[in-house]
Amino acid sequence: MKAFAEFELTKEFRDRFQEALDQRDRAFIEESLRDVNPVDITELLYEFNAEESKFTLDILPLDVRAAIIKGLDSDTRKSFLKIYTAAEISQVVNLLDSDDAADLLNELPIKVSEEVLLGIDAELRNQVIDLLRYDENVAGGLMAKELIKVRSHWTVVQCVEEIRKQAEQVEKFYTIFVVDENDKLLGRVSLQDLVISDASKRVADLLEEDVVSVETYMPDTEVAGIMKKYDLEAVPVVNVHGQLVGRITIDDVVDVITEQAEEDRQLMSGITEDVEEDDTVWKNTRARLPWLLIGIFGGMLSARFMGLFEKELVSVTAIAFFVPLIQATGGNVGIQSSSLVVQSLASPGYVDEGLWNRLSKVLFVALLNGFFLSVIVFGGNWLLFGNKQLSFVVSVALFSVVVFASLVGTITPLILDRFGFNPAVASGPFITTINDLLGLTMYFLTVMILL
Amino acid sequence: MKAFAEFELTKEFRDRFQEALDQRDRAFIEESLRDVNPVDITELLYEFNAEESKFTLDILPLDVRAAIIKGLDSDTRKSFLKIYTAAEISQVVNLLDSDDAADLLNELPIKVSEEVLLGIDAELRNQVIDLLRYDENVAGGLMAKELIKVRSHWTVVQCVEEIRKQAEQVEKFYTIFVVDENDKLLGRVSLQDLVISDASKRVADLLEEDVVSVETYMPDTEVAGIMKKYDLEAVPVVNVHGQLVGRITIDDVVDVITEQAEEDRQLMSGITEDVEEDDTVWKNTRARLPWLLIGIFGGMLSARFMGLFEKELVSVTAIAFFVPLIQATGGNVGIQSSSLVVQSLASPGYVDEGLWNRLSKVLFVALLNGFFLSVIVFGGNWLLFGNKQLSFVVSVALFSVVVFASLVGTITPLILDRFGFNPAVASGPFITTINDLLGLTMYFLTVMILL
Repeated sequence: MKAFAEFELTKEFRDRFQEALDQRDRAFIEESLRDVNPVDITELLYEFNAEESKFTLDILPLDVRAAIIKGLDSDTRKSFLKIYTAAEISQVVNLLDSDDAADLLNELPIKVSEEVLLGIDAELRNQVIDLLRYDENVAGGLMAKELIKVRSHWTVVQCVEEIRKQAEQVEKFYTIFVVDENDKLLGRVSLQDLVISDASKRVADLLEEDVVSVETYMPDTEVAGIMKKYDLEAVPVVNVHGQLVGRITIDDVVDVITEQAEEDRQLMSGITEDVEEDDTVWKNTRARLPWLLIGIFGGMLSARFMGLFEKELVSVTAIAFFVPLIQATGGNVGIQSSSLVVQSLASPGYVDEGLWNRLSKVLFVALLNGFFLSVIVFGGNWLLFGNKQLSFVVSVALFSVVVFASLVGTITPLILDRFGFNPAVASGPFITTINDLLGLTMYFLTVMILL
Repeated sequence: MKAFAEFELTKEFRDRFQEALDQRDRAFIEESLRDVNPVDITELLYEFNAEESKFTLDILPLDVRAAIIKGLDSDTRKSFLKIYTAAEISQVVNLLDSDDAADLLNELPIKVSEEVLLGIDAELRNQVIDLLRYDENVAGGLMAKELIKVRSHWTVVQCVEEIRKQAEQVEKFYTIFVVDENDKLLGRVSLQDLVISDASKRVADLLEEDVVSVETYMPDTEVAGIMKKYDLEAVPVVNVHGQLVGRITIDDVVDVITEQAEEDRQLMSGITEDVEEDDTVWKNTRARLPWLLIGIFGGMLSARFMGLFEKELVSVTAIAFFVPLIQATGGNVGIQSSSLVVQSLASPGYVDEGLWNRLSKVLFVALLNGFFLSVIVFGGNWLLFGNKQLSFVVSVALFSVVVFASLVGTITPLILDRFGFNPAVASGPFITTINDLLGLTMYFLTVMILL
């Protein structure tokens, strides 16, 4: 039994491996990677350039090579496969499941992918051509064609016979799907039911009808939500006629969930999607600049706005002291509010209480928080600065900022969601900038009125 | 076949259901919930109070009742089960898998849980008692005891016989684990191999040895990482002696991944964990206040700090105009940097390049971003305000703030991670506050030196 910890990628091993690559030491490479899980080899290869990686892969058996190429992330694979001929790619694709094959072909230039398609087995080719029709973000783009299906009038023996035949192509199967003569999905039988049942029983007797299925055009995040909610390890995909056309397994959905979380986090932290710390300096710079510019633009607007109150600032300089306090609080409150809305939008089975119910509750929370903070700030400022009147003005402004930033933070993600944008944007620099400006406006309005 | 969309929780249905509950209309409740997936009923019940929910559940068949109670979130279940007697709880627990049973018992007051334990079947009781020993955040706390294990010297026929026997307790099984006479894990055989193999073959011939396993004390997030990395639908859990003691399935791990993402998001947005939009106003207020207070405290420190430069502010009021610009940029840069570090810490197979390599790269990105932003701000300010000298000072300060906030944003999550804290804290209000203060300091230092 191989414990997972057997292969650990250390700096020492990487350096030794680099040496072997430089010396074209095939024996070392073959020896050191024998029995290593392809997933671990994939990670090792991220440390080397394309030529070195290809040299390593060419030494390894074809099935390991296919597993490694399958495991690469999309961007890396795209540039890596440039040094492969179409024939070499076909060899690899032939060993992949239809969904992975379609993903890989999608990344190739159209000319190469046509050539690769010609080089693979006819059955896989047909499956892949069918899958290539779907957008990658819908159920059709996630599904694989490999599945085991049986007809409802068959006996258990016939089933097992068919499974023996089909199992050669289907690497992992969880469920056996039952269809009628028109391929319409009727339900499923479980493998364990087949194993423990009388050989003469009919499939129709073992049929479980309460199967949750998804349609080809359902967005991938919805598929993920359904599989999570109903605790499914595999879900059948049907077309508009109810015919079984593929299946999605939970491991594909785990990737969707992880990507979604990562995308949300990047939106919240103001980084263009798909950049990682180990990308180039230039790519990292480009990914950050646009969002920083939004902040800069807001900052310059703030400066211009404060310029309008130069007279007030000259007469009471201390007004300026509290700008950071007002802005930081507005920003924090806004992010808290939007984050809670994003969370409840994402949670399954959320019953819309109506906008007014929601806002009135948010308002209560904001009034409470605003009250506590204002009292604390009033006391603190009075003690620190001894200016009772200014402390009062700051507290009133703070109270209004908390209330308004809460409402803006709540409404913005709802609007974004309504129009089909990712509501997590509302916790990012864009909204923070708007809240900053809003806070400043409320503060100086209060100053104008009360001071 | 039941399409998932068949049951949609509408406001109309909820109101009609409330009416039925008020009138104790058993017939309507039974009729309307027949054939509805327990997962959907669970969601419906979140809309009603504990007594109403129990009234509904008591009408439903025991297995549906068990599935619904299993599906409740931990907090709700904890308070919901208070109106159940120990005997009633035992009835439900008897129908659960050992891992779910242990989770439920963990939530009960010790006195009740002892009583419930006495009321359940002896075998389940022993399994649950074993599981209760583990912390809920390690592999032992995630695993279930139900699994199918066979000995390596058995034949395929013996295996199938054993599976028939064991399958009664094991609802879903993915893999059949192979152990030696001391229960030491040797590997696995796949059910499809058994189905398609000669009846007289030995398990040892079908044995797949390259099985990834985890040990009972491994943290749940690590288990999730391993299952994701190696694309596993189930992983065996072994104790320190290498003996097979349980198994973890991918659906449990999906929950771990989702919770982790949610926890990260809450830390980033300054909300105490475990609050949801539909919790009470008071709970929502409490969850937000501590983080807002950190911001308030930072704001008051900022005010105090700016007070030290009152003389400079009086002579050139415009200095104050650019405080928001400086602070917003510092905050944004800091969050971007920490978010990238958090992401790379979370990604599997990350090779530590050493702190200095990392920082020198961050420094380059910061220098580039700082340069672009300073040039833009210098031009913009000169145009808008016509004060070349002040524009220059602001740009120099902005440049230093970008560089310093990048470094702080990079180092902080690394330090937090080193000391075992969740590094996502570093993208939250705590660090934003520190960066605000840092930005202000750098700005006024620059003003002092250059103006």
